[in-house]
Amino acid sequence: MAKYLIVGGVAGGATTAARLRRMDESAEIIMFERGEHISYANCGLPYYVGDVITERENLLLQTPESFNKRLNVDVRILNEVTKINREQKEVEVKDLKNNTVYTETYDKLIVSPGAEPIKPPIPSINDSAIFTVRNVKDTDKIKSYYNEHKPQKAVVVGAGFIGLEMAENLHHLGMMVTIVEMAEQVMTPLDYEMAAVVHQHLKTKNVEFFLKDGVSEFERKGDYLEIRLQSGRKIEADMVILSIGVRPETKLIKEAGIDLAPNGGIQVNKYLQTSDEHIYALGDAIAFPHPITGNYTNAYLAGPANKQGRLLANNLVLGHKYEYKGAIATAIAKVFDLTVGSTGLAEKVLKKKGIKYISNITHGGSHAGYYPGATPTSIKLMFHPETGKLYGAQVLGYEGVDKRTDLIATVLQNNGTIYDLQEIEHAYAPPYSSAKDPVNQAGFTAGNIIEGLVKIMHWDELYQLHAPNNFILDVRTPDEYELGKIEGSVNIEVDQIRNRLDEIPKDKKIIIYCGVGLRGYFAARILMQKGYSEVYNLSGGYKTYEHATC
Amino acid sequence: MAKYLIVGGVAGGATTAARLRRMDESAEIIMFERGEHISYANCGLPYYVGDVITERENLLLQTPESFNKRLNVDVRILNEVTKINREQKEVEVKDLKNNTVYTETYDKLIVSPGAEPIKPPIPSINDSAIFTVRNVKDTDKIKSYYNEHKPQKAVVVGAGFIGLEMAENLHHLGMMVTIVEMAEQVMTPLDYEMAAVVHQHLKTKNVEFFLKDGVSEFERKGDYLEIRLQSGRKIEADMVILSIGVRPETKLIKEAGIDLAPNGGIQVNKYLQTSDEHIYALGDAIAFPHPITGNYTNAYLAGPANKQGRLLANNLVLGHKYEYKGAIATAIAKVFDLTVGSTGLAEKVLKKKGIKYISNITHGGSHAGYYPGATPTSIKLMFHPETGKLYGAQVLGYEGVDKRTDLIATVLQNNGTIYDLQEIEHAYAPPYSSAKDPVNQAGFTAGNIIEGLVKIMHWDELYQLHAPNNFILDVRTPDEYELGKIEGSVNIEVDQIRNRLDEIPKDKKIIIYCGVGLRGYFAARILMQKGYSEVYNLSGGYKTYEHATC
Ligand SMILES: Cc1cc2nc3c(=O)[nH]c(=O)nc-3n(C[C@H](O)[C@H](O)[C@H](O)COP(=O)(O)OP(=O)(O)OC[C@H]3O[C@@H](n4cnc5c(N)ncnc54)[C@H](O)[C@@H]3O)c2cc1C
Ligand SMILES: Cc1cc2nc3c(=O)[nH]c(=O)nc-3n(C[C@H](O)[C@H](O)[C@H](O)COP(=O)(O)OP(=O)(O)OC[C@H]3O[C@@H](n4cnc5c(N)ncnc54)[C@H](O)[C@@H]3O)c2cc1C
Ligand SMILES: CC(C)(COP(=O)(O)OP(=O)(O)OC[C@H]1O[C@@H](n2cnc3c(N)ncnc32)[C@H](O)[C@@H]1OP(=O)(O)O)[C@@H](O)C(=O)NCCC(=O)NCCS
Ligand SMILES: CC(C)(COP(=O)(O)OP(=O)(O)OC[C@H]1O[C@@H](n2cnc3c(N)ncnc32)[C@H](O)[C@@H]1OP(=O)(O)O)[C@@H](O)C(=O)NCCC(=O)NCCS
Repeated sequence: MAKYLIVGGVAGGATTAARLRRMDESAEIIMFERGEHISYANCGLPYYVGDVITERENLLLQTPESFNKRLNVDVRILNEVTKINREQKEVEVKDLKNNTVYTETYDKLIVSPGAEPIKPPIPSINDSAIFTVRNVKDTDKIKSYYNEHKPQKAVVVGAGFIGLEMAENLHHLGMMVTIVEMAEQVMTPLDYEMAAVVHQHLKTKNVEFFLKDGVSEFERKGDYLEIRLQSGRKIEADMVILSIGVRPETKLIKEAGIDLAPNGGIQVNKYLQTSDEHIYALGDAIAFPHPITGNYTNAYLAGPANKQGRLLANNLVLGHKYEYKGAIATAIAKVFDLTVGSTGLAEKVLKKKGIKYISNITHGGSHAGYYPGATPTSIKLMFHPETGKLYGAQVLGYEGVDKRTDLIATVLQNNGTIYDLQEIEHAYAPPYSSAKDPVNQAGFTAGNIIEGLVKIMHWDELYQLHAPNNFILDVRTPDEYELGKIEGSVNIEVDQIRNRLDEIPKDKKIIIYCGVGLRGYFAARILMQKGYSEVYNLSGGYKTYEHATC
Repeated sequence: MAKYLIVGGVAGGATTAARLRRMDESAEIIMFERGEHISYANCGLPYYVGDVITERENLLLQTPESFNKRLNVDVRILNEVTKINREQKEVEVKDLKNNTVYTETYDKLIVSPGAEPIKPPIPSINDSAIFTVRNVKDTDKIKSYYNEHKPQKAVVVGAGFIGLEMAENLHHLGMMVTIVEMAEQVMTPLDYEMAAVVHQHLKTKNVEFFLKDGVSEFERKGDYLEIRLQSGRKIEADMVILSIGVRPETKLIKEAGIDLAPNGGIQVNKYLQTSDEHIYALGDAIAFPHPITGNYTNAYLAGPANKQGRLLANNLVLGHKYEYKGAIATAIAKVFDLTVGSTGLAEKVLKKKGIKYISNITHGGSHAGYYPGATPTSIKLMFHPETGKLYGAQVLGYEGVDKRTDLIATVLQNNGTIYDLQEIEHAYAPPYSSAKDPVNQAGFTAGNIIEGLVKIMHWDELYQLHAPNNFILDVRTPDEYELGKIEGSVNIEVDQIRNRLDEIPKDKKIIIYCGVGLRGYFAARILMQKGYSEVYNLSGGYKTYEHATC
């Protein structure tokens, strides 16, 4: 009879325990959780704070009792595993209720301790109105503070997914919310021009934000906190959410002398085995080679943790049969009415890693334009300049962002190319898509670039372009042109290009733009075949340019 | 300068013309359309009838003028190509406006004539209150009839996608709608138990339907029509929509002596070339080997027609460079509040073709259950019993059906397996999905069946099971059991199984069921490991059983 000890009773731990039990009814399975709750919906916590999820018990997918009843797992909450004695194959456990310590032996030890919110040593960081959000207890604290103090003004420090979800939810409670973020943008998985759309959306919701600025100090002033920023700015707040990132919980593993990866995560092989053959690890805490870069990376995501748990349980019972392939970091977040998805690598990461790539932005509609209710959907694709192998994508919109992100992620995960995107035979009826889905269109457009049918220019390249030897050609209608244009551009509607070629100089670099890139591409095709040699189409058109430069 | 003639100016034809122009600015391109309109949104027609799409002009994505202006294509509406003189490489064209005939030569001829609604020789079929829906003119007729006669009662004959969309839209206009369908179910791409869900939904909308019945006769009785069914039943109606299927328009091609496939479609090779090397065909009219069965099949779908058009234009200009891979018939329809998606082959088709398969149904939620607004999502998967290669899927629900259909279709299209579904790294946040998406869960469940972790029984097998040597075990809660159960079942809650094994006979076949299949699976795992040898879990649980047998 195999004996499994599991450290951590939430996404990775509980899933491993559950599948282990289904695979082996007779195994001894003990699951240690230092907190009070197991199997809670971490991802639901911001929405519970915001009263979108109204029932606390809905967060608790299992209780120790229900988990034991259904799966016959010995669940020990308020039990912290404090040490691993690898020689003896045993762990030391601190019972936090009774303040006692005991040991437990294992055949295999499974560690899914997660990651903890980073709390830098800023003055007054431990003030009782400053919160982090990791578990149910944290939200209990926030909710009781809220009920007691009725805070009006909140500051969210750090504008990652969790920070923005918290901002939305505090806003939903009626608070004035200010975001402070060190980077020049919110949501680091996005590239700047995509994040710029989020910035504008936040503005429409009256959420204030300060970018390229960090907190240097908190100071309690009676019933409010003063937050001093590195720029010198001071903000007042009744409460603060700290969401500047997480750090893998590796203390236990490190102290046991088990290898960590260069990035600080627990290093595992493709069977999720650590450098100790009897100890396995999964979830937020592990570092695994990224499928594209090969670099050890952590994926702070529930999907991978859950899938790893199932795979690991299979391998524990059946031998090392299934290989984990790594996560490409597919993520999504609701930011008020906007949905933001991403998968794979951002342009800025590719740049930093020196990986050759092309990026391109297309804008389409969530479904057929002639059917009511279609909303804009923007896709940024990163791919290899010759083979079209997909590297990453970012998707923005109001509806169907999840499906486009999923589709691209699935192709990317399977080492697919932009040609695979072209061929996707999606389900089409007018309420759901167009005969060519925006994902197909992104693939077509990328293909045209690779095959030399069109050259593109990016908003920042055009923005920085001062050379006199350029002709910026706006091919939208005169009405559109009047409403807003790029400085120095000349307007010739796409439908008139063929008749007005004499107005377009042959000896200059021609940069064409339209609303989103489509008409610009059509115009570029005409000029390129009419003997113009240096023709560029603005990627993402005026829409992206305007978002990114405004 | 290449000269291309294109027959048909809508999905396949117009897309080919557009891409041809972008690929070759100097080519001569003439597009013939016998109707009045080109580039219209066929798929939007039912919604225009139903006043969901309110502007007629929104249906016309391009007009002959705009198409010519933008793409410099010679568009000839009301011009019907009546004959192909292959020797001379010319076509005969009838100008329907002037009633003249002329010829036009080609280098390459491209034929995308579509498919026409079937109109069987039933008495009075040509009554002015009986309509088919193919093009804008048809909807003009319906709308003017509607405005003039204010019909109250409509009968829709044929319950495919178009029939159901029409039913919904006429209902939306306030009519009493009755559907008549020859098959035992609506929507033939679905299997019976999935269609059963649609039946129930139609009932909740007060749409009447008669299945396994066909029209034998129409008879005009003053200001209404009497519709006599083969069963003898009579229905009265003010108007009738005939939507019993379509037939590829092959007359032109057939008369030119070009090969048709066994199924009657225009036979093309992987470059969409007919048996005449200078003549290509695409769209609804062509038959192409189905990627799974290899049999020549038509795909009556806009996505494939559009994608074929682009590929064909590429090949015409660049030589035979890209191979068409065939369509797997991914389709979707909105049926009132329900969405129904399908891809690949249905179980009944696999059965008929003698292809070895397993089918399984799972029910999940459109997103995390703890986040408000999650709705049920059902997935039926068909796959190879050993390799898990995907054959087909049907998806039903209220939200996110499109995305699950697309995901499965994409995997299927790439010869993927149910294991690929397990690994899909989808975008997860509570408003969009669960840490394990329903598509992952469908893959997990399929994997468990293939690997022998659980045996399943289908609703129809259980329904027909009369042998006394069975023990039907309901593992839901006593409350659920009280609300409705399968005849002869015994109730032991899943969480009590381990303690009540003595109540479960070892010498009988055990058929377990729960609400949707999940708890049944957990119970099956326990029993199988406790020495019970013949244990089955009801696929889709009581939910599917109830839908299919009620
Ligand atoms: C607010 C919030 C929102 C999120 N939203 C999303 C989202 O929308 N989508 C998404 O994909 N992911 C989201 N995540 C991330 C997701 O929750 C994690 O990726 C996932 O839970 C990781 O699983 P894990 O098992 O590694 O760690 P956890 O689920 O954090 O579980 C680790 C557990 O181990 C316990 N533990 C640690 N050390 C010990 C010890 N020594 N002894 C005993 N117990 C120990 C901890 O108390 C903890 O309960 C969110 C996370 C948070 C905090
Ligand atoms: C009501 C309705 C709803 C639909 N809904 C959907 C949906 O939701 N999703 C989906 O994927 N598909 C849907 N379809 C199917 C989709 O519209 C077709 O698959 C697609 O249009 C096929 O393209 P095609 O070019 O082959 O034919 P068509 O688009 O039909 O174009 C063929 C054209 O050729 C012309 N023509 C034929 N012969 C000649 C000739 N000899 N000379 C000159 N002109 C000729 C015809 O007049 C016709 O206009 C729907 C179809 C209809 C009718
Ligand atoms: C609650 C928890 C313990 C459940 O673990 P689990 O039992 O493995 O997962 P599920 O409840 O999704 O059930 C999945 C099992 O049911 C099976 N299943 C799912 N739907 C089924 C159906 N309709 N019919 C039959 N089987 C089904 C799956 O195959 C799978 O079994 P398997 O792994 O043995 O193949 C675990 O997910 C957890 O603790 N979650 C909360 C923490 C968390 O994930 N946080 C981050 C997200 S907020
Ligand atoms: C209207 C119609 C002529 C358009 O044909 P089209 O020009 O090929 O198609 P689109 O308007 O979608 O444009 C697609 C082109 O724009 C490009 N494109 C799309 N979005 C772009 C963007 N944001 N930036 C740059 N290029 C873009 C694509 O790459 C593609 O060009 P390519 O084929 O040369 O690669 C044709 O689709 C039609 O007749 N449709 C109506 C009939 C029909 O399809 N009915 C069934 C469905 S209701």
